[in-house]
Amino acid sequence: MEQIRKTTEIKAEPVMENPLPETIDTLFTRCRLAAMAGGRLSVIENGALTVSGEKIAWVGENKDLPRDFGSRCETVVDCRNRWLLPGFVDCHTHLVWAGSRSPEFEMRVRGVGYEDIAKQGGGILSTVRATRAASRETLLDLASKRVKTLASKGVTTLEIKSGYGLDLETELKLLDVVGDLAKTFPLHIEPTFLGAHALPPEFRGDPEGYLSLIINVMLPKVKAQGIATAVDVFCERMAFSLEDTRKIFEAATALGFRVKLHAEQFSDSHGAALAALFKALSCDHLEYLSPSGAEAMAKHKVTAVLLPGAFYYLKEKQKPPVQTLRDLKIPMALATDLNPGSSPVFSMTLILNMACLLFGLTCEEALLGATLNGAKALGLDRTKGSLEPGKDADLVVWDIDDPADLCCFTGHDPVARVMIKGRFLYLDI
Amino acid sequence: MEQIRKTTEIKAEPVMENPLPETIDTLFTRCRLAAMAGGRLSVIENGALTVSGEKIAWVGENKDLPRDFGSRCETVVDCRNRWLLPGFVDCHTHLVWAGSRSPEFEMRVRGVGYEDIAKQGGGILSTVRATRAASRETLLDLASKRVKTLASKGVTTLEIKSGYGLDLETELKLLDVVGDLAKTFPLHIEPTFLGAHALPPEFRGDPEGYLSLIINVMLPKVKAQGIATAVDVFCERMAFSLEDTRKIFEAATALGFRVKLHAEQFSDSHGAALAALFKALSCDHLEYLSPSGAEAMAKHKVTAVLLPGAFYYLKEKQKPPVQTLRDLKIPMALATDLNPGSSPVFSMTLILNMACLLFGLTCEEALLGATLNGAKALGLDRTKGSLEPGKDADLVVWDIDDPADLCCFTGHDPVARVMIKGRFLYLDI
Repeated sequence: MEQIRKTTEIKAEPVMENPLPETIDTLFTRCRLAAMAGGRLSVIENGALTVSGEKIAWVGENKDLPRDFGSRCETVVDCRNRWLLPGFVDCHTHLVWAGSRSPEFEMRVRGVGYEDIAKQGGGILSTVRATRAASRETLLDLASKRVKTLASKGVTTLEIKSGYGLDLETELKLLDVVGDLAKTFPLHIEPTFLGAHALPPEFRGDPEGYLSLIINVMLPKVKAQGIATAVDVFCERMAFSLEDTRKIFEAATALGFRVKLHAEQFSDSHGAALAALFKALSCDHLEYLSPSGAEAMAKHKVTAVLLPGAFYYLKEKQKPPVQTLRDLKIPMALATDLNPGSSPVFSMTLILNMACLLFGLTCEEALLGATLNGAKALGLDRTKGSLEPGKDADLVVWDIDDPADLCCFTGHDPVARVMIKGRFLYLDI
Repeated sequence: MEQIRKTTEIKAEPVMENPLPETIDTLFTRCRLAAMAGGRLSVIENGALTVSGEKIAWVGENKDLPRDFGSRCETVVDCRNRWLLPGFVDCHTHLVWAGSRSPEFEMRVRGVGYEDIAKQGGGILSTVRATRAASRETLLDLASKRVKTLASKGVTTLEIKSGYGLDLETELKLLDVVGDLAKTFPLHIEPTFLGAHALPPEFRGDPEGYLSLIINVMLPKVKAQGIATAVDVFCERMAFSLEDTRKIFEAATALGFRVKLHAEQFSDSHGAALAALFKALSCDHLEYLSPSGAEAMAKHKVTAVLLPGAFYYLKEKQKPPVQTLRDLKIPMALATDLNPGSSPVFSMTLILNMACLLFGLTCEEALLGATLNGAKALGLDRTKGSLEPGKDADLVVWDIDDPADLCCFTGHDPVARVMIKGRFLYLDI
C-alpha cells in the first residue's frame, strides 16, 4: 500500500513527547502500527506500544524504547512485524434475535423485494414473533455466540439495538439481555432502544396507538431502568414517518437520551435533517441522503454510518453520496448492521471490503470507518477508536502484510491477538 | 428452509439396504444430514452416519441403528442435531503465490480496469515477479497458511493451479510446492498445470515462442515428473487465443492429461466449444458463454465452474447464463478461484452466498456446486462430494440451523468438526 503510506505517514515526534512510563503492564514491540490518530491511518513502521492498566500509555518507534525497558514490563509481546490497529467499533447491530430468516433469503434470491416480504408477514415481523416467543436465556445464548464471533474477528466495541420485541415486556427483555452481554464480555457494549423499528401486528391500523405506547410507556420505563443510552428510529415509508420520528425524538431528548436514526435507506424521507436538529449521534444507511440533509448533518456534526452489508444483501442500486460526505467532512463510519434478514454479516473485514468495492471508499477511509469514526458514531471517540496515549487499550494484532489486506481479502479474519482495556481476549498468537 | 426440504427430502429406505457394518471406526449420531446424493440436498432429519477406515460405511436414520451399536464403535460423536454435509470441494484455486496485490485493489476501487492494470505490468505479471523471486520454502509457507485456512472452513478437496511462474523452473517449483502441500495435509489436492496463464515479459512480442516452450518443453517435463493431473489455459483476448488453446490441448491430451479451460470470462472467445471437443473436465468463469458453447458442453458432459468471487471483485455486470446451464442440465460447480488479485476469497460459504445473491443460484444449487458438482469438475465424483456408502469419509459437522444458513450468513464459517478420509482434522466440537 505504498499509496496509503505516502499520503498518510506521520512523524513519530508528537507521541515521543509522552515519556515511557515507569511501570508497564504490556509492551508490544517490533510491531507496525496503523494508529488512526487524527483521522488518518498514521502509520508507524518499526513501532512499539505500551499499556498501563486499562490504557495505552505510550506509542512510538521501537528504537526509542530505553535499553532497560524489559525490566519494567510485566508482559512483552514480540509482534514480529505484525500490524497493530485499534479494535473495531461495530456501531450498528441488531444482534439479539431468535428464529431464522434463511427461507426469506431464498425468496430474495428469486427476486421478491424486501418490502413485499415484509407485507407478507416476513421480514422484521417474523423475527419479532420468534423473539417474543424466546426465553431470556435462549436469547442470551444466541446473542452470546454472535458477540464471541465478532470479538474473535477484532470487534472490541459494539452497539446493540433492541427492536425485535415491539411490546414493553420484550423490548425490556432485549435490553436486559444486552446488559447481560455487557456484564459477560469484556467488550464495551452500548445499548440502544429501537422500539420504533416496525409497527407491531397488534397495532396494525393504529400507528398512533403504538407511537403513544413508545412515548408514554416504553421510553420512560427504559429511562427509569437505565438500560439504554440512545434511542433509534427506523424512519421510512414502510416504518415510521418523519412526524412520528420527531415526536419520539422530542420525548427521548426530553428524557436525556441521545438519538440516532435509520435514515434515507430506501427513499429520501428527510430524516437526516430532522435528526441533525436533534444533534443525533449518527444517521445510518443514507443511500438516498439529499444534499440538504448532508448539509444539516455537517452543520450539527452528525456521523454518517454506512451499512454496505444491507446494500449488498438487498441488491440495492442507489449508493450513499460518498463524495458529498467527503466534501462536507462528515465522518463516515462503517458497521455490520448484523441482523438476521438484511445483513447477516459477521465480519467487519467483509464490511470494509464491501465499503471499498460497492461504495468506493478508499482503504484508509474504510479502516477509519471501522475504528475512529465508529467511535464517533457512539460518542466514544475520546476513549476509543485510535491508538493514542490515554485511550483505552483496545487493540488487535493482525497477521497481515498491510492494513489494506483487511479491505482486500475476504472470507478470513487473520486476528493474532485481541486486547480489550488492557487485557488479552485470546492468547493464541 | 421448508421449501428446500419439501422438494428434496428423500426416503431413507434405499440406504437402509446397506446393512450396518460389523465394526465401526466412527459413528455420528443424532445429526441432520444433507447428503447431496443423486444431485439433490437429500436431507435426512434424525440421521446417523458411520465410517469404517477411510470410507463412509452406512448412512441412515438414527432410529434404525441397532440397540447394541455402541459396542461396535471406536468413536461416537453425538452431533446434538447439528448438520452433517460433505466436505467442500474447492475445484479452482491459484493458491501458491508470493507478493501482494492489495495496492491494485485500491486502483480497482478507484475505477481502473483489470485489463488496464495488467497492461501497466500489474495483475498476474506482478505476482509472477514476486513468485519467481520467492524460494520454494517461502512459497510452501505462504501456501500452507492458505490451505489451513480453507480446511478450517470446511474444504476437504482442493485443486491448485500453477501459473505464476511462466518459466520452466518456476512452473516446476510451483507444482513441487503443490506436491509438498498434498504430502503435508490430509486434504485431497489435485495439481493443475497452467503455464498458459499469461505471456511472460521475456516473450513480449513473441507469443509463438512461449507457446513452443509450453508445448515442447514444459508439458513433457511436467508429464515426466508426474506432478500435474490436468492442464488448464486462460483463453481470452488478454491471454491465449483460441488457436493457441487448441495447440496446447492437442499436446496435453496426446500426453494423457485431462484438460480444462478459463473460458469466456470477459468475452465470448468460443473456448467452451473447443474445450468440449477435447472432453474437458470443466470450463470455468463462463460469464460470456454462448448458447452454442453451452450446447457443446452439455453434449460432452463438461462441468461449468462458476466463480462469483472474481465477478464480485472485478465489478463485472455480465452474469453467466445460469438458466441455460439449468435447461441443458450442465452441472454447476462453485469455487473460490483463490488468487491474490481478482478473487482473494478464503471462504467457500462466502462463495455460496455470492452465487445465490449475484448469480441467482438457489441454496440447493449452491451447496451442490460446492460439493458433488465440485467433485465432478475434478473427475472425482465417484469418491467425493456426497455422503454415500463407499465414498470417502470427507465431511463437515456444521453448527447451523439449516443448510441454507451456509448461503445466507457471511463473514463466519461455523465449522464444528472436519473429517477427511475417516480422520478428524479438528476435535474442538
